[in-house]
Amino acid sequence: MTQTAPTHLLLDAHREVLEAATAALATREYYSRYPESPSPRVYGETAAEDGQRAFEKARNADFSALADQPGTGETVGSEVSPYGPELGVRYPQLDVDAAVAAATDAIPAWRDAGAEVRAAVCVEIIERINARSHEMAHAVMHTSGQPFVMSFQAGGPHAQDRALEAVVAALVEQQRVPSSVLWEKPTKGDPIRMQKDYQVVPRGIGLVIGCNTFPTWNAYPGIFASLATGNPVVVKPHPRAVLPLAITVAIARDVLEEAGFDRALVQLAAEDDGDGLAKTLALRPEVAIIDYTGGPGFGGWLEKEGAAAGKLVYTEKAGLNTVVLDSTDDLKGTLGNLAFSFSLYSGQMCTAPQNVYVPAAGISTDQGDLTFEEVAEKIAGAIEKFNADDTRAVEILGATVNDDVRGRATDVPALAERLGGQVVLDARPITHPTFPDAVVRVPALISVDAANDTAYTQECFGPVAFVIRTEDTAASLETFARTVREHGAMTASVYSTSEEVLQQAREAAARAGVALSENLTGPIFVNQTAAFSDFHGTGANPAANAAYTDAAFVANRFRVITSRRHVA
Amino acid sequence: MTQTAPTHLLLDAHREVLEAATAALATREYYSRYPESPSPRVYGETAAEDGQRAFEKARNADFSALADQPGTGETVGSEVSPYGPELGVRYPQLDVDAAVAAATDAIPAWRDAGAEVRAAVCVEIIERINARSHEMAHAVMHTSGQPFVMSFQAGGPHAQDRALEAVVAALVEQQRVPSSVLWEKPTKGDPIRMQKDYQVVPRGIGLVIGCNTFPTWNAYPGIFASLATGNPVVVKPHPRAVLPLAITVAIARDVLEEAGFDRALVQLAAEDDGDGLAKTLALRPEVAIIDYTGGPGFGGWLEKEGAAAGKLVYTEKAGLNTVVLDSTDDLKGTLGNLAFSFSLYSGQMCTAPQNVYVPAAGISTDQGDLTFEEVAEKIAGAIEKFNADDTRAVEILGATVNDDVRGRATDVPALAERLGGQVVLDARPITHPTFPDAVVRVPALISVDAANDTAYTQECFGPVAFVIRTEDTAASLETFARTVREHGAMTASVYSTSEEVLQQAREAAARAGVALSENLTGPIFVNQTAAFSDFHGTGANPAANAAYTDAAFVANRFRVITSRRHVA
Repeated sequence: MTQTAPTHLLLDAHREVLEAATAALATREYYSRYPESPSPRVYGETAAEDGQRAFEKARNADFSALADQPGTGETVGSEVSPYGPELGVRYPQLDVDAAVAAATDAIPAWRDAGAEVRAAVCVEIIERINARSHEMAHAVMHTSGQPFVMSFQAGGPHAQDRALEAVVAALVEQQRVPSSVLWEKPTKGDPIRMQKDYQVVPRGIGLVIGCNTFPTWNAYPGIFASLATGNPVVVKPHPRAVLPLAITVAIARDVLEEAGFDRALVQLAAEDDGDGLAKTLALRPEVAIIDYTGGPGFGGWLEKEGAAAGKLVYTEKAGLNTVVLDSTDDLKGTLGNLAFSFSLYSGQMCTAPQNVYVPAAGISTDQGDLTFEEVAEKIAGAIEKFNADDTRAVEILGATVNDDVRGRATDVPALAERLGGQVVLDARPITHPTFPDAVVRVPALISVDAANDTAYTQECFGPVAFVIRTEDTAASLETFARTVREHGAMTASVYSTSEEVLQQAREAAARAGVALSENLTGPIFVNQTAAFSDFHGTGANPAANAAYTDAAFVANRFRVITSRRHVA
Repeated sequence: MTQTAPTHLLLDAHREVLEAATAALATREYYSRYPESPSPRVYGETAAEDGQRAFEKARNADFSALADQPGTGETVGSEVSPYGPELGVRYPQLDVDAAVAAATDAIPAWRDAGAEVRAAVCVEIIERINARSHEMAHAVMHTSGQPFVMSFQAGGPHAQDRALEAVVAALVEQQRVPSSVLWEKPTKGDPIRMQKDYQVVPRGIGLVIGCNTFPTWNAYPGIFASLATGNPVVVKPHPRAVLPLAITVAIARDVLEEAGFDRALVQLAAEDDGDGLAKTLALRPEVAIIDYTGGPGFGGWLEKEGAAAGKLVYTEKAGLNTVVLDSTDDLKGTLGNLAFSFSLYSGQMCTAPQNVYVPAAGISTDQGDLTFEEVAEKIAGAIEKFNADDTRAVEILGATVNDDVRGRATDVPALAERLGGQVVLDARPITHPTFPDAVVRVPALISVDAANDTAYTQECFGPVAFVIRTEDTAASLETFARTVREHGAMTASVYSTSEEVLQQAREAAARAGVALSENLTGPIFVNQTAAFSDFHGTGANPAANAAYTDAAFVANRFRVITSRRHVA
């Protein structure tokens, strides 16, 4: 096992980061490596301008940083910003056969480098990505439709923290196996002595299939978990959100080469919309691991056909994120928190709440008892108020990402009628002051009866939420647990002043297999999870079969090969 | 989370065992909790006699210890000892619907007991099993056909050590997640403080499908990994090897009840041969985890259809266990070691060597250079000599387990002709001095050319091995790596005096994804692995998708549910 000088240098350079991040993951205390503030004091006086310039330079041009990938000679690219403009970036089309061969050839040296060196190289990649966070923010904003600050945070430092989390989670699991041991079995005479060496080996190629809404945040855990455990990675971005992952892959390849490894360890498989490249790649025999974020259709196919083909498949799809309202001693905080959660990125987060269960008899609050109708009106009012100022609202709402979302938010009365519900709040259109072509909608609220479960037991991705009339809180919790077990959820929250109800909610969440946030009235929102402390998803309900980042997410990405012999 | 007094007592009682076993698993140094010697000094003066009496008492009778399982009112049972006699044990037939409902109802209290209490209860179960090791030895012997001492060791203490290994591997993974943390995010003002609680929750019912040859050894890792992570377990034994697992399940249920938990956490699903119960159980929606040992037919079905149905499937099937002979400075030790490995339990171990690659030009040894033919003859001679004394030989060979194995070993010349090979050593029949109805065969050796790969690229389970003529050692290693990647292997070994060849063999084993034993000439055999130190299988080739016991075997059997709230 030879180790080259640059990788040793990276090991020294990043030892402290790895130790701190490992310690944080063990305690799950607050830890963040990458500052979430885009402030010039943190990222440098020229960082914002440099980032914007780099983004503009990439537009309407060939993405030459990946020109050295094995290519077909053709280019692909059809990105259109949800804010309006076409990006015009042309990516070299990957020659899949050649790419797979190159990735396979790259395995032995990366495998033999060992877990620690791989982790250090991964950290270096993440550090370099961090340095380009402003550029990344523009790339994420103009592919996902996220507002700028969110694009910076979720697309940049938060995604980078999740990447680092995956790296150390993988490192810890690999370090559980010693590199060697002297095994001495006592006998009546001399003990039997054996030297045993344990080598971590990768599974094969890791395929990471990105999504439109969180191109980096949802792709980094899979990319870095596979890479850190010795697997080469092919990144297949969503055709409408290529640029953030193209930048990522280009950085990774440069760092790998500088560290003495093969650039082919990370490759980008861009495609035009509708090429179906994900399925082709998923079924390649060399692909052993698949990480997927996206709709339940292809996700379900992967969970079935990919798994049947012997691949390890990690998915995040969709679900019914639920809020159970029982009572509150801070109505204002509750409504403000909920309004933000509904509004942030127009409900286009896989973690955004959708279904709010409210007892038919209403709830008690610090502002007196409220009927069901009053609760619904209060929530609607909070959403309206939160988004009253168009200029401020667009910085939270962002833009709707695709026609599917726009379709649902365009004629809410028709949607409500079709679902058998009543419109409490229609989706108000907003004209974006800077990007007039962006389709921006303030979230709508539809009221339905719990008995009408077809209305609310499918994901309604985007700026539409449901307030659901239940018999009482016990019924709310029961419906919550049942619908999440059946249909999945990424998040859940409960508001109650009763410890007994909170305990029942915890029990329901445990049965449903979803994480629970209790009485969020301040600056923490149910849609947001903190790397190193909160798991994203649980893997325990149909919304996702994996969580960022637990041992199950990393432990099967590698295998251990023992060699043993007698020693004197 | 309430904990009952008995479970606390068990926690105190077994804390030291858990700590010692956990430490051993981390270092992979020698560790064994359960003595492998059946000596009266270890297990008590009357243990052997008591065990035999208990076994005889079970015969030709209803297995009443499981009468309290939810049953159909019918009994099943068709066990016939490979040594001849019918066992005549009648097992209550499980009512699957009622059993699944009972198991599901048992989950919350077992889940809420926590990882430490579950581990302690599991240790208590294993300790009680250990106390009945002599009885178990007879049960294993007369279902598997193993010789007595092997039945005692592999069916008793070695299986128990593997069980304990699974328990602590599961415990370590569960303990990686703290039960709670105070999370403090710094802000410009007061930090944001949240209390986060993490609860380990099980996946659902664990189904463990046992095999005929190692009913306990191969079932215990799955049983205890699932149970220790909070999942109720349904044990579906092989219809011809029920008794060892019936005893196991009965002990587990008693311990669980004494510890304050539900007996339904462990249930036995016995069936008559051909009932097809495994498939029925595997497709139950309540079954989330499947552990399987057995033939590749049903194993392949589970890997495909079970995985496609969203189950976690852990399999051990079959493969081409390989020996690469290059050179040796201890010919006598090499031959003796190989002869034992071929003979032990008549080659009916999933780890028994089958394919021996020898260069066409022969090998160099401390007794001079040997031609290919001489090597083959020497191996054959060693097998003959090792089994020369019938009375001693049967104590190693045991009995052939089924007609399939007997068919292959009955007319070796016809088999060789069909495969295009030459008989180097025919399978000599031995009449067992105590059990005249047992079919006992000294292993046969067939010589084939490497080009004739159809002859040796399928598993030939039982007392038939192949010596395969290759171009040279480089070709041996290449064929080894390729055939194992394609067809799988549980074990591999190499003999060489050259460090360079050994290094190449390690590289080939890493590519093949199989553990390697080097130059075994003493009391360690390639078919044997030591719990806490050697992995059984790797999960990196088609023979098995899992290993006993690594993190990947346990980490996905549970999930973590977080609840979080603000604190002052």
